[in-house]
Amino acid sequence: MQDLIIVGGGPAGISAAIYALRAGIDTLILERDFYGGKMNYTSEIANYPGFVNIKGVELAENMFECAKNLGVNFEYSDIISSNLSDSVKMLVSSNGKEYLCKSVIIATGLKTRSLKCKGEEKFKGRGVSYCATCDGFFFKNKKVIVVGGGNTALEDALYLSGICKEVILVVRKKFFRGDKILSDSLKNHDNIKVMFETVVSEILGDKKVEKVILSKNNKKEEIFTDAVFIAIGQEPANNAFSEVTSNDLGYFSSDESCITNIEGVYVAGDCREKILRQIVTAVSDGAVAATAAVKFIKNYKFKYAHARN
Amino acid sequence: MQDLIIVGGGPAGISAAIYALRAGIDTLILERDFYGGKMNYTSEIANYPGFVNIKGVELAENMFECAKNLGVNFEYSDIISSNLSDSVKMLVSSNGKEYLCKSVIIATGLKTRSLKCKGEEKFKGRGVSYCATCDGFFFKNKKVIVVGGGNTALEDALYLSGICKEVILVVRKKFFRGDKILSDSLKNHDNIKVMFETVVSEILGDKKVEKVILSKNNKKEEIFTDAVFIAIGQEPANNAFSEVTSNDLGYFSSDESCITNIEGVYVAGDCREKILRQIVTAVSDGAVAATAAVKFIKNYKFKYAHARN
Repeated sequence: MQDLIIVGGGPAGISAAIYALRAGIDTLILERDFYGGKMNYTSEIANYPGFVNIKGVELAENMFECAKNLGVNFEYSDIISSNLSDSVKMLVSSNGKEYLCKSVIIATGLKTRSLKCKGEEKFKGRGVSYCATCDGFFFKNKKVIVVGGGNTALEDALYLSGICKEVILVVRKKFFRGDKILSDSLKNHDNIKVMFETVVSEILGDKKVEKVILSKNNKKEEIFTDAVFIAIGQEPANNAFSEVTSNDLGYFSSDESCITNIEGVYVAGDCREKILRQIVTAVSDGAVAATAAVKFIKNYKFKYAHARN
Repeated sequence: MQDLIIVGGGPAGISAAIYALRAGIDTLILERDFYGGKMNYTSEIANYPGFVNIKGVELAENMFECAKNLGVNFEYSDIISSNLSDSVKMLVSSNGKEYLCKSVIIATGLKTRSLKCKGEEKFKGRGVSYCATCDGFFFKNKKVIVVGGGNTALEDALYLSGICKEVILVVRKKFFRGDKILSDSLKNHDNIKVMFETVVSEILGDKKVEKVILSKNNKKEEIFTDAVFIAIGQEPANNAFSEVTSNDLGYFSSDESCITNIEGVYVAGDCREKILRQIVTAVSDGAVAATAAVKFIKNYKFKYAHARN
């Protein structure tokens, strides 16, 4: 059994690990993607004091180095469910592995919102993408669809227009939610076509995405495409932790203490209900959550013989 | 009139400046000591994610560089009073200079607690010191007194024992408040003498410290010394801001929003009522306070013709 498991290896999770390890607590980070979290998808970071500007991947590397140097345990693992109410807490990964520990810090951050249309789940990684800068290159000179009307969708469309032959931007509303400077610059790109008041109702294909069905005013239209880039915003990654109280938007309920409704369970970073989601607020949460967890672990006593008996 | 004045150039103040400047707000930092605040008195920092470890002064320099690069205005100025309730806010420095602005972020941090004994004020900088690592060297091979029973006092005594001929550690209680590992290691230093249940009741001298009067059980004793290092803890630097609500211990009252009882006035960092005082929590506060101040300044309207008319 681990003392402390931190779910999520972004800035909140790494900071929590640093603080826990320095207090002498054995710590395991479980991360489903890359350590550093969303910093990996940020080209330049210029608002983390100490670095005038730094590449996101580089800051991710530097931060992780701190935890590694203190002896953190790290595993790639996608936690999909948990049992946290007992004194021995259990986390279960997508491949069925079970982890037991005394205390958990949830630092899962945000995940991209899904369209929830037919075919989306089936073609994830086979034409359905949530990251233009990660996957755009695979669709060089192809035709792609971008879904969304905010800054991310606008930036993705502009980015993909430099790689792909044709970009169709599908916007649910009559207008863009994103900045004017971005929507204006769409006009300078001949290969971007915008369709307002339109939604993707189905994604179709055989082994990979081949076409989508678009709906506009109840009229359906079939369009061939090689990829669907979904950029309709983000939401807290809270699925695996149904016992932890969250607010209407799905953010875990807690104040700056990072304490949740469950003893020994803490939340840190973007997945927490908070005012400002930034790297600096994430590392702060990590330190606060870890300090609370350390105190809890040092006073830990088994309340039950074993959670699973 | 400035848009935003940040009082204090430690990590909270610098982070606030970075966030305000990036939002296009004209920003002035007023600092009475060194930018970087207490980081300057920390030899190695190993809990700021992104740096495995870094000298305190170096992190101070790196952080300040970020704000400088964005065009921050910086002045050495010791703010001693303020008038914050009007729409034009006024700050007054120790040399009588008045500063006017729309919004203030108080990031003054902590100051060393003073003994409040006779002679302390008179001999500040002339034998009375609050920083052994800063001033110890001036008393090479001399006899010094350290006052306090916590970790700082213990560390100071150990540090000074390597520089000075003789160190007398004056402890008010019957025991040390500091860690056993530190108090144990006092025994390995022949030139450290400990006096429990003793207080410094007066500091005497002509142009500089020459002796102190110690009291133990109403018995007074005069001891020659070249310096008095005071290490009896820290308290929030709140003197200049009597209009801002604070708690019993003098910390400015605010939750993680950094909002105070006065519109347009925010608090950030160690001077704020909070759970954990660390560089990471300070930079977080700075960002949150600046984001609130920026919003306030962008909606700013004069409520009064001029605060001073």
